Amino acid sequence: MCGIFGVWGVKEASSLIYRGLFALQHRGQESAGIVASDGKTLRLHRGMGLVANTFTKDDIGRLKGSSGIGHVRYSTAGLSRIEEAQPLLISCSEGEQIAIAHNGNILNSGNLKGRLEREGSIFQTISDSEVILHRIARAKTRDFISNLISSISLLKGGYSLLFLLKDKMVALRDPFGFRPLSIGKRGKSIFIASETSAFDLVGAKYIRDVEPGEIVIIDKSGLTSIFYVQPSPQEHLTTKSYLIGDYELPYPIRKSYCIFEHIYFARPDSLVFSEGVYSVRKMLGRKLGAENRVSADMVISVPYSGTIAAMGYAEETDMPYELGLVRNNYIGRTFINPEHSMREAGVSIKLNPVVDIIAGKRIVVIDDSIVRGTTSRKIIGMIRRAGAKEIHLRISSPPVRHPCYYGIDTPTEKELIASKKSLSNIRDFIGVDSLEYLSLEGMLSCVKNPRDYCTACFSGDYPIL
Amino acid sequence: MCGIFGVWGVKEASSLIYRGLFALQHRGQESAGIVASDGKTLRLHRGMGLVANTFTKDDIGRLKGSSGIGHVRYSTAGLSRIEEAQPLLISCSEGEQIAIAHNGNILNSGNLKGRLEREGSIFQTISDSEVILHRIARAKTRDFISNLISSISLLKGGYSLLFLLKDKMVALRDPFGFRPLSIGKRGKSIFIASETSAFDLVGAKYIRDVEPGEIVIIDKSGLTSIFYVQPSPQEHLTTKSYLIGDYELPYPIRKSYCIFEHIYFARPDSLVFSEGVYSVRKMLGRKLGAENRVSADMVISVPYSGTIAAMGYAEETDMPYELGLVRNNYIGRTFINPEHSMREAGVSIKLNPVVDIIAGKRIVVIDDSIVRGTTSRKIIGMIRRAGAKEIHLRISSPPVRHPCYYGIDTPTEKELIASKKSLSNIRDFIGVDSLEYLSLEGMLSCVKNPRDYCTACFSGDYPIL
Amino acid sequence: MCGIFGVWGVKEASSLIYRGLFALQHRGQESAGIVASDGKTLRLHRGMGLVANTFTKDDIGRLKGSSGIGHVRYSTAGLSRIEEAQPLLISCSEGEQIAIAHNGNILNSGNLKGRLEREGSIFQTISDSEVILHRIARAKTRDFISNLISSISLLKGGYSLLFLLKDKMVALRDPFGFRPLSIGKRGKSIFIASETSAFDLVGAKYIRDVEPGEIVIIDKSGLTSIFYVQPSPQEHLTTKSYLIGDYELPYPIRKSYCIFEHIYFARPDSLVFSEGVYSVRKMLGRKLGAENRVSADMVISVPYSGTIAAMGYAEETDMPYELGLVRNNYIGRTFINPEHSMREAGVSIKLNPVVDIIAGKRIVVIDDSIVRGTTSRKIIGMIRRAGAKEIHLRISSPPVRHPCYYGIDTPTEKELIASKKSLSNIRDFIGVDSLEYLSLEGMLSCVKNPRDYCTACFSGDYPIL
Amino acid sequence: MCGIFGVWGVKEASSLIYRGLFALQHRGQESAGIVASDGKTLRLHRGMGLVANTFTKDDIGRLKGSSGIGHVRYSTAGLSRIEEAQPLLISCSEGEQIAIAHNGNILNSGNLKGRLEREGSIFQTISDSEVILHRIARAKTRDFISNLISSISLLKGGYSLLFLLKDKMVALRDPFGFRPLSIGKRGKSIFIASETSAFDLVGAKYIRDVEPGEIVIIDKSGLTSIFYVQPSPQEHLTTKSYLIGDYELPYPIRKSYCIFEHIYFARPDSLVFSEGVYSVRKMLGRKLGAENRVSADMVISVPYSGTIAAMGYAEETDMPYELGLVRNNYIGRTFINPEHSMREAGVSIKLNPVVDIIAGKRIVVIDDSIVRGTTSRKIIGMIRRAGAKEIHLRISSPPVRHPCYYGIDTPTEKELIASKKSLSNIRDFIGVDSLEYLSLEGMLSCVKNPRDYCTACFSGDYPIL
Repeated sequence: MCGIFGVWGVKEASSLIYRGLFALQHRGQESAGIVASDGKTLRLHRGMGLVANTFTKDDIGRLKGSSGIGHVRYSTAGLSRIEEAQPLLISCSEGEQIAIAHNGNILNSGNLKGRLEREGSIFQTISDSEVILHRIARAKTRDFISNLISSISLLKGGYSLLFLLKDKMVALRDPFGFRPLSIGKRGKSIFIASETSAFDLVGAKYIRDVEPGEIVIIDKSGLTSIFYVQPSPQEHLTTKSYLIGDYELPYPIRKSYCIFEHIYFARPDSLVFSEGVYSVRKMLGRKLGAENRVSADMVISVPYSGTIAAMGYAEETDMPYELGLVRNNYIGRTFINPEHSMREAGVSIKLNPVVDIIAGKRIVVIDDSIVRGTTSRKIIGMIRRAGAKEIHLRISSPPVRHPCYYGIDTPTEKELIASKKSLSNIRDFIGVDSLEYLSLEGMLSCVKNPRDYCTACFSGDYPIL
Repeated sequence: MCGIFGVWGVKEASSLIYRGLFALQHRGQESAGIVASDGKTLRLHRGMGLVANTFTKDDIGRLKGSSGIGHVRYSTAGLSRIEEAQPLLISCSEGEQIAIAHNGNILNSGNLKGRLEREGSIFQTISDSEVILHRIARAKTRDFISNLISSISLLKGGYSLLFLLKDKMVALRDPFGFRPLSIGKRGKSIFIASETSAFDLVGAKYIRDVEPGEIVIIDKSGLTSIFYVQPSPQEHLTTKSYLIGDYELPYPIRKSYCIFEHIYFARPDSLVFSEGVYSVRKMLGRKLGAENRVSADMVISVPYSGTIAAMGYAEETDMPYELGLVRNNYIGRTFINPEHSMREAGVSIKLNPVVDIIAGKRIVVIDDSIVRGTTSRKIIGMIRRAGAKEIHLRISSPPVRHPCYYGIDTPTEKELIASKKSLSNIRDFIGVDSLEYLSLEGMLSCVKNPRDYCTACFSGDYPIL
Repeated sequence: MCGIFGVWGVKEASSLIYRGLFALQHRGQESAGIVASDGKTLRLHRGMGLVANTFTKDDIGRLKGSSGIGHVRYSTAGLSRIEEAQPLLISCSEGEQIAIAHNGNILNSGNLKGRLEREGSIFQTISDSEVILHRIARAKTRDFISNLISSISLLKGGYSLLFLLKDKMVALRDPFGFRPLSIGKRGKSIFIASETSAFDLVGAKYIRDVEPGEIVIIDKSGLTSIFYVQPSPQEHLTTKSYLIGDYELPYPIRKSYCIFEHIYFARPDSLVFSEGVYSVRKMLGRKLGAENRVSADMVISVPYSGTIAAMGYAEETDMPYELGLVRNNYIGRTFINPEHSMREAGVSIKLNPVVDIIAGKRIVVIDDSIVRGTTSRKIIGMIRRAGAKEIHLRISSPPVRHPCYYGIDTPTEKELIASKKSLSNIRDFIGVDSLEYLSLEGMLSCVKNPRDYCTACFSGDYPIL
Repeated sequence: MCGIFGVWGVKEASSLIYRGLFALQHRGQESAGIVASDGKTLRLHRGMGLVANTFTKDDIGRLKGSSGIGHVRYSTAGLSRIEEAQPLLISCSEGEQIAIAHNGNILNSGNLKGRLEREGSIFQTISDSEVILHRIARAKTRDFISNLISSISLLKGGYSLLFLLKDKMVALRDPFGFRPLSIGKRGKSIFIASETSAFDLVGAKYIRDVEPGEIVIIDKSGLTSIFYVQPSPQEHLTTKSYLIGDYELPYPIRKSYCIFEHIYFARPDSLVFSEGVYSVRKMLGRKLGAENRVSADMVISVPYSGTIAAMGYAEETDMPYELGLVRNNYIGRTFINPEHSMREAGVSIKLNPVVDIIAGKRIVVIDDSIVRGTTSRKIIGMIRRAGAKEIHLRISSPPVRHPCYYGIDTPTEKELIASKKSLSNIRDFIGVDSLEYLSLEGMLSCVKNPRDYCTACFSGDYPIL
């Protein structure tokens, strides 16, 4: 996961991007970067760590110009080093500068990279973004948009992209629309963001999403839209396929929005896929309550991701919702754990139970998902030690059994507890009195257009492989 | 406000203090420090900023020994400089080292300091703590405890203190007990903390509070208790007075616990004054609902301090509680606001309304208190712009009309909006459709022993001046 | 200018490179970097500023392996940003990693880059090194050395290069040999360095120089030498030319060692071009004395670069040499000049005259060269204010009239004072009683093989353009 | 050793002090600090490390006012921590602020401190300066100068002091004048510095020294001088003594200037004790040559402290002086020595022999002194390995046999090689062919007034104990 943010036609682009990245910080804390353009030159500043620690006033001041793009990067298994920080800024034909900010994952980047290397390309990063830039630079024509289209036609995967050139900003989403990307406006200024909450911080208004397969070009003549994948006629729905570039797309392409954005990743004050995250998350909790009622004294959540679902569950089941776990907001990534014997206590420094409330009670704990199960086990142990009489764990999504290949950093199938263990075994491992998940149907009933969503991590039904 | 934490008889004192200070970080982000003792030498490390940024592994490693005290300092009007960071560490008679960590405010420190200066003392800080150390050093006898008693007898104000010497740790509270201080245990190890949630992080159990007027001495022979103010016989309740040191105490001294710890300051997972903060805060919300019902679509809170009261209000009034404002946890003190025209936007970078939920609705907003009114005004403006149809502000404490002299950093009476304006004027200034406060009686009914609490900031009834 | 250092077959390569870079720090203070190889993976760490500030113990520890290359970069007109720091590390065909460290300047890098960009290459830096890597990656065969030869055949300019691959280290010099590069040994370990003084710090012994046009390959089978330019048969000396790659080399290629290494750049304890810098520098001073005697009370120098020449001048003219100017070694690049009115005082913070010695005396000042003349003017003013009766400036090299295109950072011809002004005008501008330069012949007489040296910056006789 | 610098009556005091401290950086690299006064408030900023790393532009900007004092601290056996950094700033009677900067050592500070502690003083540092401030604060009258006199009358030792109050700056030297202190002027602005080279950097002119036993008071009415020790009538020269404060001074007090300032410590471009360091150092070399001639091929020095003496020696003995050892100016204190096996190589990273010059030659090496002998041994080993045929070590001062108690950081007598070993044993330990020291008489003959100097570290004749 990552967060991307672009602005066009403002007074001080870098200042606004700085603000916007703050709003997207939850999407990535590994590194942050901004490229700004004054119409002639693109300038880059990037660094490791939080937005707040990466930019000084002077840095922002040096990034002159009225347009720009920014990026916050999630820590993945990849290398944690400055070279991987985005945006990437390169120069190519005729010395033209191109900057890219990327959210997502390219499935065939290994192949593309291998082919490029055999053709003589060199790589300074391990990121998919560099592959895309190489492809664009190697395209035949002099027109950036044509080159872009011919290049992304080769890409297989989930990706939302932002490009900056000296005279234009370009935003696009893959044909499946795995990752979100929205358009905002303030006067004549145009904004692009992974989540709409970033618009709020810069006083912009959400207009619409960049559509799957759409390229949005913003330049002095305003906003232009191109679809690089033909929209799907209804009649051809199931059998045919459609070739873009190197590989076959199922035709008509099925929209495949990442439902995990609603479940866990996005801010509750954002719209993603033009639907309010808060409302969806609340509905997930309600549905979970309807499906998996249990008799207990109260509902609590694992803050903060489980909170809204827990409130929904409590409403539905008519139990009181309580803040049974308190989260310390000052931890960050810097806690040094000097005492080796206490390395295990990682969770306890972040979360603490309200013994007063919990002791002697029957508790329903709501969490958004279980991945490896180890963190859940620690949290449940903590609640148990706080004196809970019964603990019933309810998960506001189905069991995660399959890895995500479209931009969410999940472990391999082997490490996913739900792909190895039965429900009762997971229950025993985590140490709860009962454990239930939301059903796949239940989950899908909480969004407006269930067919538009990807459920691969739950169902194994991968839209593209 | 500040947070203090002490440990005695552990393997690596500084590691545990480091953990404990994390738990108390909400009580002060200006500076942090630790003094540890290996039985022979006391060593100090302190720095500006958060605990996480002040200590490296090496720093913790250098602070050797099995006992120690730590401090986090709140940013007050005073100087923001390293010299003011606590603990203070001094040497005095016979080269004996004494460290002090202080939470509170000494009313007569100016007088005491002037007198000390006239007697030839020099001051390197502006803190009350240095005054206390001077007084101790100037006391006549060779016995630290005697000197301590004769010195604190001169102090007027609210203070919880921690001392470390090479062979003992000493904790005490002023005779009124304004500020909290608790004792915890883990095996034979003893812990002292401003709030009990710090015990949870080091695996200790809450035993009891240090009592008002009590000095707790911890050394190799265990824990000893001395009362330096005679406990009050019931019969003498109203008329007499009792002299300790230089000034008269009302006799019997009335307990004067700071009720603001329950309303706002302490963590909800702490016990303070041996009462659960979470439960009190919930009751404040319920009482507020009982007193000031209003017809609306939902209850929201200003996160995080208003959250639990809002949940109580919602329960009492049977309205749904929603997370209408989302708080960004990544802001900290580092946001640089590069764009001058946006300096006003300080609140908007921290809080963002969930438009989806709020638009078109009648909203009850719960906050814990109103001080100057300016922040409330900005927050309400934000909710209004998000489309709320009606906004009813309910405050889970009475109007703050008087400054606190006992350790809470309030502005002068002039700056307190409730001491200048009528309810309807405040309502208009903040821009809400209705505004109500919890009554003084209502507030007091939420704690076990209402008579044990100080309400000076609401009532002007100062226990000591 | 830059400094490069390579090691092969040692226990902890990065530790030794760290040491070696210290010895080369005078060749570049802008940035520093190390790539080390453990036989499988190449790892890079680089940073802005001095070696001492770039690497922590942890950084060195992470750079595991028995071979590696390092680089210190000189601050040029180019961009001062982390992206430009060397070594560069890339992956290319079959994922092979290649690291490069570069000292010099490629004249036709613009053309080569343009051609590469048209072929679809993208550039993340402005450095010549990236051009070289692209060329290598685009070469047809699978063999690195073949690709390297076909690529460098296209390069026009002065360059000494170090490459690291997982199974070999490769060092080479351009066919003219503009920049120095030496080979050292310690047991079976092999070292490559810009200057031999770096060998002293790692306990290695100087063996010989990498020859102009030679590629030295170091791998598990030891050291192999290839000449990629055919050595010049004596008979063909003047007329013919010889084509390597894209452009014609004058045949036989004339050696073109940079004489400025002896005059100014290299450390006096180094051998460059297998000749002792100290001895050459001393001879320059002696020759200057022989050519431009003047009657005075003492000889002083501008420390430290003019010192040894001044000692030679003093010996030759039998005048006393005195340390008339004292240099402050603590200045670095960090002096902040807070007082604007004093910005001019940059020189005075670095150098200070010994008034005691200078006042009332006739002084000969020796400096190695005059570039713009502005610094000399300030220094002379300082000596004048210290009370010198007469000041005679003697320069231990001829007038610099032409820019260098082979790796020395000189300003444009316009900014070179000697290309605009007559000797007497320069004398007046700088404010000395007399000014003389060493003659071209005089200068060349100080080195063993005068015909092997490039004198373009003095004579305009560019070996290659 | 330390360096102190004061300014009075300038536009931006802190800027000028910043410059002045650069000039004094060789006197202390442990910490740096500045206190400035705007006539109402004194403000302090201090930090660990070099001046260049301690102050940002903002820091200098915050230190407002037209007067101020600064300090650089030498790393001694004492604590390396921020609390010990000077100046110290305190408030005392009536809230008056006093800042102190101190160069020297108080012999009886332990006693004074003990007495103060018994009287109830507390200490936050281990520095003598805090003792002095306490004594001043405890003096009876309201007049700072009277208090100062009565306080320093108790001090036994060598000290130069600078005080800043809001309305005056005060400079003084102990009655023996161990440590230097000079007065400079620029227009109506007055400057005080440990060494006169600091005046050069701020455009001030040296006027005269603060005299031993003199207090110089600078305020709006200009400069006033008070002698707090009665000047000595000639007739009473040997027998009587004179009591100031607590202890007897030998009467008449004998001047006891530290001759080590000339031998090693001060910059050669400074006057100390109103005599040019450069000239004295040259004379020491000449005298050494006259006393200890040896037949050899050249004279070299241990840079930089031995350089000028070596030049004198070469002149006297008519041998060529060569820069046989090159010093790396980029080392600083930051070299991390990652490779444990090479920890011994500390000297080799700083100094490197010019093999070219040294190999096969008979070398005279000049150094200023030998303390423990271990560093000399390493340097000589390095020269030996460079191929020197003979090495003759000549020291431009007598053997250091006794510790200094007046402000130079020498080891205990046990660790001084010359107090344990005979000349021939030292010679063998260091590994030279011959070793000679300058005689005591020879050394004294190099300064104008030999009787004014302290020679305790050579002779054991301590002026005061």
